[in-house]
Amino acid sequence: MEIHRVVRDLVTTKRNFWLAAKPLRVVEDYKGDLSVAVDPIGCKPGDFVITITISAARIAAGNPMITTDMTIGGIIDHWSEEEWRS
Amino acid sequence: MEIHRVVRDLVTTKRNFWLAAKPLRVVEDYKGDLSVAVDPIGCKPGDFVITITISAARIAAGNPMITTDMTIGGIIDHWSEEEWRS
Amino acid sequence: MEIHRVVRDLVTTKRNFWLAAKPLRVVEDYKGDLSVAVDPIGCKPGDFVITITISAARIAAGNPMITTDMTIGGIIDHWSEEEWRS
Amino acid sequence: MEIHRVVRDLVTTKRNFWLAAKPLRVVEDYKGDLSVAVDPIGCKPGDFVITITISAARIAAGNPMITTDMTIGGIIDHWSEEEWRS
Amino acid sequence: MEIHRVVRDLVTTKRNFWLAAKPLRVVEDYKGDLSVAVDPIGCKPGDFVITITISAARIAAGNPMITTDMTIGGIIDHWSEEEWRS
Repeated sequence: MEIHRVVRDLVTTKRNFWLAAKPLRVVEDYKGDLSVAVDPIGCKPGDFVITITISAARIAAGNPMITTDMTIGGIIDHWSEEEWRS
Repeated sequence: MEIHRVVRDLVTTKRNFWLAAKPLRVVEDYKGDLSVAVDPIGCKPGDFVITITISAARIAAGNPMITTDMTIGGIIDHWSEEEWRS
Repeated sequence: MEIHRVVRDLVTTKRNFWLAAKPLRVVEDYKGDLSVAVDPIGCKPGDFVITITISAARIAAGNPMITTDMTIGGIIDHWSEEEWRS
Repeated sequence: MEIHRVVRDLVTTKRNFWLAAKPLRVVEDYKGDLSVAVDPIGCKPGDFVITITISAARIAAGNPMITTDMTIGGIIDHWSEEEWRS
Repeated sequence: MEIHRVVRDLVTTKRNFWLAAKPLRVVEDYKGDLSVAVDPIGCKPGDFVITITISAARIAAGNPMITTDMTIGGIIDHWSEEEWRS
């Protein structure tokens, strides 16, 4: 898993049927590179989260039919920008 | 998922049987690196899209026999080059 | 598999049900980049370990329902920072 | 999928039983980094091809028992070094 | 598949049950970055090999229960450091 920070929501009106079942969040890594993750937990911008990739991402989304390759797996309790970038 | 921009179509006369079932698009990331994705949605050059990789790409293509490792999952409603590169 | 060093534990009170079954460790590679791995073995900070990714990570976690993409597979007997970075 | 150029054949007398069923090609990306792909299509050096990775690579090889993580999926009809590197 | 060179053996007394069934080798790529691969073939340090990743790695290890994400798939017959780094 990787450590990401939630940046914002992502709206895709025209999208894959199964992806439509869950909210999508734009997340960034410590270098500022952006990815898009399914959020089955309910995160808000600024939260530090662990993101799950590979086939585990589909299981973590709550339904293996959800066609995601990245899913938020948890909100980290104690994390700061300093720890992240060291 | 990653955020890509559709660049152009890709024609491969001699190709894998199952790949032939769907249009292919050349997409670029924010650094200009190119990849090739199956497009089950119907995108046009210039669209910002989310791309799905790993085993989820086959499911998103509409048939797990389609031998793709990257499939376009949705067209992003509001996105600009500025957000992408920040 | 990759060679990582265990940095610390990671606490995520609000997390995916299945991930909750196993301890999580922050690990670093030789460049200092951080990842998060499930630890079914019992490592302590400073241990050099091999980490398993992809679908094998779920099997290595002891239950394929555990939604991990990285699991610690073993503690390396003889390894030093010098070998790692050469 | 990624865009690669076929460089040469690869001979591995001592190899995995299932890999032995198909020709192997060394391919390069636009930066010159080399990989090895199974070729079920019949490519020759200099061809620009799309390469399929992940579990789709095994299916594209014609038999999921073929232990490949990269398979050539098609020969690109119109491609030049200029398009590749832009 | 990628082209790696075998560097040395790796000993992990305390490790995942299934990984214990096969020898592990430290391998390096052309940049000197290290990884760890299961070796079902019997390689020695200095051999140039092709390495298989993703789910194919488990199949190539001879038993899909072996929790590896990288397995040596064959020894390359003719390869030199010059070809590798060009």
